[in-house]
Amino acid sequence: MTAQDQFSAALGDAAVAVEATMTDLLTPPDPAAPLLWQAMRYAALSGGKRLRPFFVLQSAQLFGVSDQPALRTAAAVEMIHAYSLVHDDLPAMDDDDLRRGQPTVHRHFDEATAILAGDALQTLAFEVLADPATHPAAEVRAALVAALARASGAAGMAGGQMLDLSAAGTDWDAVSVQQLQSMKTAAMFAVACESGAILGQASDDQRAALRAFGVNFGLAFQITDDLMDVTGDAGEAGKAVGKDAAQGKATLVELQGVEGAREIAARFCHNAVESLDLYGDKADLLCEITRRITDRRA
Amino acid sequence: MTAQDQFSAALGDAAVAVEATMTDLLTPPDPAAPLLWQAMRYAALSGGKRLRPFFVLQSAQLFGVSDQPALRTAAAVEMIHAYSLVHDDLPAMDDDDLRRGQPTVHRHFDEATAILAGDALQTLAFEVLADPATHPAAEVRAALVAALARASGAAGMAGGQMLDLSAAGTDWDAVSVQQLQSMKTAAMFAVACESGAILGQASDDQRAALRAFGVNFGLAFQITDDLMDVTGDAGEAGKAVGKDAAQGKATLVELQGVEGAREIAARFCHNAVESLDLYGDKADLLCEITRRITDRRA
Repeated sequence: MTAQDQFSAALGDAAVAVEATMTDLLTPPDPAAPLLWQAMRYAALSGGKRLRPFFVLQSAQLFGVSDQPALRTAAAVEMIHAYSLVHDDLPAMDDDDLRRGQPTVHRHFDEATAILAGDALQTLAFEVLADPATHPAAEVRAALVAALARASGAAGMAGGQMLDLSAAGTDWDAVSVQQLQSMKTAAMFAVACESGAILGQASDDQRAALRAFGVNFGLAFQITDDLMDVTGDAGEAGKAVGKDAAQGKATLVELQGVEGAREIAARFCHNAVESLDLYGDKADLLCEITRRITDRRA
Repeated sequence: MTAQDQFSAALGDAAVAVEATMTDLLTPPDPAAPLLWQAMRYAALSGGKRLRPFFVLQSAQLFGVSDQPALRTAAAVEMIHAYSLVHDDLPAMDDDDLRRGQPTVHRHFDEATAILAGDALQTLAFEVLADPATHPAAEVRAALVAALARASGAAGMAGGQMLDLSAAGTDWDAVSVQQLQSMKTAAMFAVACESGAILGQASDDQRAALRAFGVNFGLAFQITDDLMDVTGDAGEAGKAVGKDAAQGKATLVELQGVEGAREIAARFCHNAVESLDLYGDKADLLCEITRRITDRRA
């Protein structure tokens, strides 16, 4: 099998396994509010590349973590990502009708259901992590909760979304845009990678290396996403293009031009790969996904 | 000091102490998204009786838990309550302009900010509980997260709100209404009381007794709230009255009439007090608040 085949297979296998775990966690026996669970499943099980869970699984594998802890943690991280998409799509936020070609949760159900489904997906993510089924060591479970909460809360993803919303119509410099993208996008990739190290009860250095990888990957990922909004077609991007500029969102592409942004993304990719030096060959797939992200073959 | 003075002083002291802890947790140094934190503070620090935190502190006191763990846990429980009010008030949900006489978060800021502030308050609650500053034993921290997530998620508070929204215009029986209120209201009172037992590393029986107290108190509390909507004036209720009936919400008052509902509330109060038998005199203040709740002098 070529490296490329191996990579595609690993990404596909991860998506299938994580979706099975999420389906299980999102299908309680005899639920009292079945419509809410239906909306949660609609939000969380509607496809996507499952990149963040892939990173959880890959980083857990570096420490020989067994399947159940890795998959439950990957599912929790993806539930947080899914909740954020549901709320970001709401009319009061980005006002999107489609997500991955399907009606968004508030279009398929209604706004109240979408708000509650997002809320309850967030709650479930922390419930899953705190459950002894995720890891026998309470120290690990509490550390997973703390790390995911920091990454997704006001100092991370939610704070980044707040800055993004207030970016429209204001002047931004490159430093501020990078701060915003560190919070909005990179923090979740960083915690995905870090979670494997937490599950593996890794050393501080090992954990810091995976965090650094995730931050750099996340920043490169966001820039290539912004590049696709400018240069791509809707089919390739999987969503409407040209929308960021129309909404006046702050991106490095706006500030540095297409070539400038490509160079910055390449630098973050280089830094990401370099962060994993201490893992040697074992981190090959993580390096491979990083190389692909700049030209978006991933 | 009379029992009544002692009770009022304890409730007031708890509110002051919990608000100081929340203010501290909601005022990070040099935040990257200051407007989001401002909205979170507006949502969480706008008054209220702080009943749920009072229950955390009172139940923690039964086991001699020290101040910092009890106050941080109380603050986390109140942050979840605060987030739920912010989202419940949104136009797509209950569409309320006022909360405790002040403009609701989405009226004072805007809808997007209100959604994100609610989201980030929820996240912060779990971050606070998972933090070693809340308790040295990771087993306790993980158990607090698990219990609060169960109580507030799709099988608890959020699921109850979903049922409440879908109740309008449908026929409900008393059993279904009680199920809804167990989830929407009683689950959070139950976890507030249970949290003290978790912090105190209490026996299963001690923990179950506090849970049972919280469930029964919560059900009585909800019925008296519904009674006030029918019989009270806006000043006494602290909010617009007659709104539940106008919205076709499912309440026991609608189903059983005012006298019938009063009797059921009295029975829950009786059960609540009885649940605490094993604590003897030490639970006097918890019993006192229960006696007051039926005539809403609390």
